[in-house]
Amino acid sequence: MSSALPTRPEEPDTLFSRFSLNQQTVRQWSLPELVDGCANAGVRGVGLWRAPVQDYGAAAAARLVRAAGLTVTSLCRGGFFTALDSKERADALADNRAAIEEAATLGTETLVLVSGGLPPGSRDLRGARERVADALGELAPYAADAGVRLALEPLHPMYAADRCVVSTLAQALALAERFPSEQVGVVVDTYHLWWDDTIGSQIGRAGAGGRIAAFQLADWVTPLPAGVLLGRGQLGDGAVDLRWFREQVDAAGYRGPVEVEIFNPALWERPGAEVLAEVVERFTRHFVHAR
Amino acid sequence: MSSALPTRPEEPDTLFSRFSLNQQTVRQWSLPELVDGCANAGVRGVGLWRAPVQDYGAAAAARLVRAAGLTVTSLCRGGFFTALDSKERADALADNRAAIEEAATLGTETLVLVSGGLPPGSRDLRGARERVADALGELAPYAADAGVRLALEPLHPMYAADRCVVSTLAQALALAERFPSEQVGVVVDTYHLWWDDTIGSQIGRAGAGGRIAAFQLADWVTPLPAGVLLGRGQLGDGAVDLRWFREQVDAAGYRGPVEVEIFNPALWERPGAEVLAEVVERFTRHFVHAR
Repeated sequence: MSSALPTRPEEPDTLFSRFSLNQQTVRQWSLPELVDGCANAGVRGVGLWRAPVQDYGAAAAARLVRAAGLTVTSLCRGGFFTALDSKERADALADNRAAIEEAATLGTETLVLVSGGLPPGSRDLRGARERVADALGELAPYAADAGVRLALEPLHPMYAADRCVVSTLAQALALAERFPSEQVGVVVDTYHLWWDDTIGSQIGRAGAGGRIAAFQLADWVTPLPAGVLLGRGQLGDGAVDLRWFREQVDAAGYRGPVEVEIFNPALWERPGAEVLAEVVERFTRHFVHAR
Repeated sequence: MSSALPTRPEEPDTLFSRFSLNQQTVRQWSLPELVDGCANAGVRGVGLWRAPVQDYGAAAAARLVRAAGLTVTSLCRGGFFTALDSKERADALADNRAAIEEAATLGTETLVLVSGGLPPGSRDLRGARERVADALGELAPYAADAGVRLALEPLHPMYAADRCVVSTLAQALALAERFPSEQVGVVVDTYHLWWDDTIGSQIGRAGAGGRIAAFQLADWVTPLPAGVLLGRGQLGDGAVDLRWFREQVDAAGYRGPVEVEIFNPALWERPGAEVLAEVVERFTRHFVHAR
């Protein structure tokens, strides 16, 4: 399974050919605006989210993207597997099967999963993490049959209670490694992982096992906003050494898409094309070049 | 070096005899109010902060605390070692020597250190962490001569950029272990460490090496406030399994003070005695008993 974008013979295989714009970075754009905006900017990959895809219709979205010559690099997101209640758990699995089908329809092989946090009133992190493993066990073969790989995303530890009990790349890998690498991979997102002093060796482990299913970029800026969900920084504005991450992920053998995914209301207030141009410029300056 | 509070023969050696109230939990109290309030509530340990101690005078504070039969379980805090500028670095070391002397004056053997974040504009986490090690090397012998142990505190990864580049207990231990255990220990604070799936084994490592210099409690509640500094939860209100932490720290052989340190403006708006009574009740329910 290769997750590299197709390289056209007339273009050099530069890092920019692997650039992908995650839809949340330009939430102000409708799906057709996103597709047009990317095509106009020479961007060849997009990461999509389920809600806008469902609103547009997955099959229609797939046609729209394909007609513009774009590739869907990932679908965000399934997951939220940690419920204790059996009805909620069954609903979550059904919803994830729908997400797998949407990913297949879009022609992406990568479905990003966010595990879910602690159920209300629970303090049992270990139990919640085991329920994530159980859910992966149920979904991975189903996804593989559909040509989709589950990409488990470790989120920053500040989300461990309410959003994602998988907080480090080591943890995500320990879960993924229970399954074949073509069925379950991991997401390396600089925003969530930059602080971890073991991240270099864990990226190496992920690469050696063929587990890097997606590579996402955002910068870490402070102060964090209330709720800490929408405070991601434009590339180059914060503490993350993006170029260092690139070298680690390169050395681990990953050659797939590099998605820029920035949740930041200040970016959503500006014209999408202006934001995309800025993202591309920052990507070139801080991720491709730098130092 | 024993960091246990003196046990009076007339009192059973219960967990409550190891309870200590960190001054920041009842910031509304002056130092004399804190001392009176603790004495009235049968609390025998207090964790103090440098600014109010300096305002009162360290020697006068020491007399006040001692006259009430209280023990100072820790002084918070030195650190902030990560400056690149040599003048700033020299200033930080001088300030830490002053903190060591204040701790000695107060009769506490535990000076809590928060390492500092990235210098402005820097993305070099690894370099910042090495500067922490360098500072420990300069200060540890000085502190030991004063009868004070440096207690390096890992802070939650959400503070890595702007406050503390030491984010896990494993990292803090790797730094501390470069020095004799009687010179440099670590702080185990549930608020900062609860999310870490390796925390049980790291607490064991810390105990085996005689490195647990302080044990602090606060709960993790969401949503986090803007700036994420003042959102710590009252014991029992959040996601932390306090009883599980106690068992880990007990099993690691630690028998010293257990400090409750909650930064929460809602607690500061209430009468201090009421807050302390609630803290003691929660401590008994969630830390001593539970399950």
